[in-house]
Amino acid sequence: MTNEKDAQAQIEEHRARIDEIDCQLVKLLNERGEQSLAIRGLKPQVHWGLYDPAREQKIFENLASCNDGPLYSDNLREIYEAILHVMKELRA
Amino acid sequence: MTNEKDAQAQIEEHRARIDEIDCQLVKLLNERGEQSLAIRGLKPQVHWGLYDPAREQKIFENLASCNDGPLYSDNLREIYEAILHVMKELRA
Repeated sequence: MTNEKDAQAQIEEHRARIDEIDCQLVKLLNERGEQSLAIRGLKPQVHWGLYDPAREQKIFENLASCNDGPLYSDNLREIYEAILHVMKELRA
Repeated sequence: MTNEKDAQAQIEEHRARIDEIDCQLVKLLNERGEQSLAIRGLKPQVHWGLYDPAREQKIFENLASCNDGPLYSDNLREIYEAILHVMKELRA
């Protein structure tokens, strides 16, 4: 039982750390959203399309280049498909 | 043309900032993965199931509580469905 209580306490500590990480993720995702909105506002002046497959490719290359694991590049791709979808739909 | 060049330069600056944000996101997502793996290793000792809907609900409440926008809670939910799926599938 002591071991069980100890394991429970450890889980609670890890969950508290996850909650902190999640708030940092939310902050960064919002900052990323602001940058995306700023770029979208500039695009009409440069006559670029809103969808840019070459830029998307570079984003995935950048992710892979700064990934030390335990997540795999495919895991990041799955998460970033959702992130990039949200960024495209975002309204100021 | 000067305005167009200026707008292009501004877009490049925003993209460079996005690349920095993305590397910070990758770092945090990996740290979150490590925490998830640690919890998974502890769960057999506390006889908890691997899937915990009450915890998932708390995660979404925490996200909403620290969200200042421009992303909406629904945007974060979309992104977190991918994040939580990846965390469940992650192998040490």
